[in-house]
Amino acid sequence: MTNPSPQFTPAPEVRLPTREGVLCAAAKVATLLPQTPLLALELPNGGRVWCKAESLQPMGAFKIRGAWHRLTDMTAEERARGVVAVSSGNHAQGVAWAARRLGIAATIVMPADAPEVKLSETRRLGAEVVLYERLTQSRDAIAAEICASRNCVLVHAYGDSWVIEGQGSTGIELASQMDCFAGGAPTRIVAPCGGGGLASGLALACPDAEVVPVEPDGWDDVTRSLSGGAIVGIGANPPRTACDALQTMATFPINFAVMTSHGMQGVAVSEAEVRAAQAYAFARLRLVVEPGGAAALAAVLAGKVPADGRTAVILSGGNVDPAAFARVIADS
Amino acid sequence: MTNPSPQFTPAPEVRLPTREGVLCAAAKVATLLPQTPLLALELPNGGRVWCKAESLQPMGAFKIRGAWHRLTDMTAEERARGVVAVSSGNHAQGVAWAARRLGIAATIVMPADAPEVKLSETRRLGAEVVLYERLTQSRDAIAAEICASRNCVLVHAYGDSWVIEGQGSTGIELASQMDCFAGGAPTRIVAPCGGGGLASGLALACPDAEVVPVEPDGWDDVTRSLSGGAIVGIGANPPRTACDALQTMATFPINFAVMTSHGMQGVAVSEAEVRAAQAYAFARLRLVVEPGGAAALAAVLAGKVPADGRTAVILSGGNVDPAAFARVIADS
Repeated sequence: MTNPSPQFTPAPEVRLPTREGVLCAAAKVATLLPQTPLLALELPNGGRVWCKAESLQPMGAFKIRGAWHRLTDMTAEERARGVVAVSSGNHAQGVAWAARRLGIAATIVMPADAPEVKLSETRRLGAEVVLYERLTQSRDAIAAEICASRNCVLVHAYGDSWVIEGQGSTGIELASQMDCFAGGAPTRIVAPCGGGGLASGLALACPDAEVVPVEPDGWDDVTRSLSGGAIVGIGANPPRTACDALQTMATFPINFAVMTSHGMQGVAVSEAEVRAAQAYAFARLRLVVEPGGAAALAAVLAGKVPADGRTAVILSGGNVDPAAFARVIADS
Repeated sequence: MTNPSPQFTPAPEVRLPTREGVLCAAAKVATLLPQTPLLALELPNGGRVWCKAESLQPMGAFKIRGAWHRLTDMTAEERARGVVAVSSGNHAQGVAWAARRLGIAATIVMPADAPEVKLSETRRLGAEVVLYERLTQSRDAIAAEICASRNCVLVHAYGDSWVIEGQGSTGIELASQMDCFAGGAPTRIVAPCGGGGLASGLALACPDAEVVPVEPDGWDDVTRSLSGGAIVGIGANPPRTACDALQTMATFPINFAVMTSHGMQGVAVSEAEVRAAQAYAFARLRLVVEPGGAAALAAVLAGKVPADGRTAVILSGGNVDPAAFARVIADS
């Protein structure tokens, strides 16, 4: 499958994301949000990684960064029109949070099977939620229809230069914290990957670090796109995954361009490896990490990505239903 | 019951804890440990408190602060003799962590019914663990015997000026973070209370703030001591509590003196209120907080302590067995 969302392919006049944009986003975020902590984590094999706990952002995921950078750069006219976003929940809450703070109307298109905690929190933040069926309806088509009928501004979850730059601010914070406590900037950053917004932003933020995007088995379209040199989407009948936040159909050219120019190669992890990582973060870091948020840690714990040098791991989100989390830790 | 541990009553020559000591401890801690995050938390009634997540310290509790300040101020001769501590687990791990880092031998006296995670982590940190039966054996007598036979230095969990000052460093960090993000220093600090080490330290750190120690129902000896004007211990046959970290028999004169001179008044919370607070911290902050660590938040959520002004809550620890935590969140 090639890029299945041509309606969102950046037009030629669209600006590309830059490192300057990442620095600007980081400066904006620094005045709004306390830094998320950097936690040292000992591995079972005696190694050590540094974990950036983005699960502790106000709405539980790094997505607040890109949403804030995007919405604060909108003109007054754009703000008055309102925004639309498509998301299984974390980008949804990020946009809803930023929109409420800025007095912008927000409509969020979410899959009907999104975790209840993500649906309810998005509504609690004041956004209008429009549900769709993940396997039978096109979320992008629904969003495009809303944009057209209401004349709203689409805030894409990853195929957007502002969003990429905003997510990249994670890397600026990370590098400064590692300079203080780890003896230098990260040499490798392992990050959960859906569409590649975070991975692209991290590559711009930390050009000298190896950035490793991690996807769930069967949803590893970015990994296959990077190894094959062209964007491919997920296959037909992808497997079920607990990593709802990482279920994207294909990356976008804007992300792919940044990731390939950085020489990035991805990795895929199993559901069992993800659960083990959630249980490890619970026991050793006392953090609640959602399945998708634990994917990068899963890759390191499974030995799929080495932890040598100064390796950092992004714990990208913590929005998980209590019953699901209880099962994961009770079985560990 | 009056002070049941006369063998640990500070001798006249013992120095009292000071605010200067707290500032010194804070400076030492700042070079060793990243600040724990300050997280804004919306309450169900629309109010807001600021949560200091000490559960994210390397071994999962604020106790690492006092242990570090105490052990780093020991002479070379004292270090060579080794240390003994008595603890249900968090002070144990704090002392074990600091001792390992400084190359000091550590023996920890722990109740046989301590959470398994606390026992195993203390051993993993290289300490020798000596078990006792909470209801039939005197932990202080066992510790005194070890001290005498091995010529070790006792590091008391709360009745020690260095330990009090070290725990107070939490307040220095908290005040500086609230200045940045909450518009000023805290006007009230609500803190879980076992023997009063943290509460005493916070009072020295933030003399202008109201400090409210919170204990579990039936283990509210500090609350009753403060309201009665004299140290009393817990009653006979105290109820079972999940707050293992707060099960102390009585406060010490050194803590009582600081708390009374600060005009402190305590509050007690029920087991159900504690569980509700753990579930709330899970859902809204994505943090794993142990029962005792959630006591202060429980008091605020139950409306027993107002959240007006700039109220801060200490989430003091996160070491909890997975099965117990799974039950708390699954039932929420």
